[in-house]
Amino acid sequence: MTQPVGDTCVLALDVGGTKLAAALVGPSGEIVRSVRTATPVGAGPAALFDLVLALLRDVAGYSTVCGIGVGCGGPMVWPAGLVSPLNIPDFRDFPLRAALAEVYPGIPVRLHNDAVCVAVAEHWAGAGAGSHNVLGMVVSTGVGGGLVLDGRLVVGATGNAGHIGHVVVDPSGPVCACGGLGCLEAIASGPSLVRWAWEQGWQPVLAEGELADARRLAADAVVGVPVAVAAFARAGWALGVAIASAVAVTDVEIVSIGGGVAQVGPLLFDPLAASYARHARLGFSARPRVVPAALGQDAGLVGAAALVLAGNRYWTAD
Amino acid sequence: MTQPVGDTCVLALDVGGTKLAAALVGPSGEIVRSVRTATPVGAGPAALFDLVLALLRDVAGYSTVCGIGVGCGGPMVWPAGLVSPLNIPDFRDFPLRAALAEVYPGIPVRLHNDAVCVAVAEHWAGAGAGSHNVLGMVVSTGVGGGLVLDGRLVVGATGNAGHIGHVVVDPSGPVCACGGLGCLEAIASGPSLVRWAWEQGWQPVLAEGELADARRLAADAVVGVPVAVAAFARAGWALGVAIASAVAVTDVEIVSIGGGVAQVGPLLFDPLAASYARHARLGFSARPRVVPAALGQDAGLVGAAALVLAGNRYWTAD
Repeated sequence: MTQPVGDTCVLALDVGGTKLAAALVGPSGEIVRSVRTATPVGAGPAALFDLVLALLRDVAGYSTVCGIGVGCGGPMVWPAGLVSPLNIPDFRDFPLRAALAEVYPGIPVRLHNDAVCVAVAEHWAGAGAGSHNVLGMVVSTGVGGGLVLDGRLVVGATGNAGHIGHVVVDPSGPVCACGGLGCLEAIASGPSLVRWAWEQGWQPVLAEGELADARRLAADAVVGVPVAVAAFARAGWALGVAIASAVAVTDVEIVSIGGGVAQVGPLLFDPLAASYARHARLGFSARPRVVPAALGQDAGLVGAAALVLAGNRYWTAD
Repeated sequence: MTQPVGDTCVLALDVGGTKLAAALVGPSGEIVRSVRTATPVGAGPAALFDLVLALLRDVAGYSTVCGIGVGCGGPMVWPAGLVSPLNIPDFRDFPLRAALAEVYPGIPVRLHNDAVCVAVAEHWAGAGAGSHNVLGMVVSTGVGGGLVLDGRLVVGATGNAGHIGHVVVDPSGPVCACGGLGCLEAIASGPSLVRWAWEQGWQPVLAEGELADARRLAADAVVGVPVAVAAFARAGWALGVAIASAVAVTDVEIVSIGGGVAQVGPLLFDPLAASYARHARLGFSARPRVVPAALGQDAGLVGAAALVLAGNRYWTAD
């Protein structure tokens, strides 16, 4: 275990609908200490924020820290850091960045979308390390991403660049949670996969307490249940179309895909590769590698830390 | 007419399949003198390059220039400047940048895709002036574009960022010239519009010497010929889908659309707006303005000049 190195450590926080995680992160992105806990539901914003502070105190211990990096579910007002994570009703326009800055005066507090943090981590220390142009994606309950171009995180006009989940892959396709039609997320997210499988007659035999969720659908796909295999093939097809479109516009050299749905492996990545090859036919667009993310569940924490530790590349506000 | 201002003027060159244009451009992007001529066919690379040099000498006169900016049809190897414009068979891997640098030693010679130059011009002095995040598009014989994010031209891994013509709008749609399926260009480019109209039974009454081209199709649409109106509506629909996808990934605040096909006006822009509104439903993605380009046929020259005159924003190589 690496020891904390005085004031070059930072605190990292990952605020998700399922779990809260915090870590003390060393100067090269190594996690010194981390804690995680289930996200409480219905406790109210003050109690939820108190829990966040308790997690940060736990991992900080007696270390001096030089900044705080936060990844949080969207949407949010960025860079102000008013957060309204879809899956955390207790936070609605909650001033997470300002509240942390009040508790930790004198050090930078930086916050981004959690999928952006994962993309940053993949560029800083994961599958995109050494590349200057990277699209990092998370395929999970939603489909999100972040974009590094010419070696720097791109944020766009409102901090929302990288929303590949809302690239249109089938304009006559299913209605998306955003209200649009045929978005990638409406086909490839975990809940979309499960919904489609149900519609096609998926009948999982569930153990007591087990949910008919994307994890179970993946397990069925791995043992060859046809409808489950078809669901992941359809998601892979949609991912290939969306990535072909995104690469045409951004000319990235590597696309890294993490998140729970991506853990199914070749059942997703093989149809993805076929679809991508069918649609990306220009020299530059056929060239990028599309690979599984290299970092695991700590990616969000590492990326949040990088907002401070490598702010020249990943932080453009203030 | 503005007078040349000593060594702060630059030479601009626009190499297209239909015409060659050159200009002497003043420090604020004003065109001091310009010439244009039809692009000769079959003369061979040496004669074509000699013609380019003659145009540059014509507009330079006795002025001292501090650099040369070039826009050229793609594809090209960038930033080396080996050009192979699809519509100019006389140039195949022609070292345009190096050849110009040899004739004009000691000053920068900078070259980009012609659609990128148009996008740069729109950001520098057109519809995107004052915005930090702009997608500039050209809808013409092809569909191209360029991307300015966080105030700087984005080039990507191979200089090809901005290729919105190859965003997939209908994955089961027509085969594109690139070999892909359902690319925007395969639906919304001038030749694609005409091909579709023919297939639907378009029967233009042509004057002697007149071509059944996109210009004629636009004229028919303006007087209400149903199949012509439908062709532009279909192109507008496709543009709305592709722009919704591109905005989701890039979070630009303005999209500027120039090129011959866009000159038809509301017959294209109204269905575009409807389609865009249907697909771009997130707060940030519904927000951008999609507008006709502000600069006319000189945009390519102005943008080429900006590669030198505002190189800190628009030139990232060397």
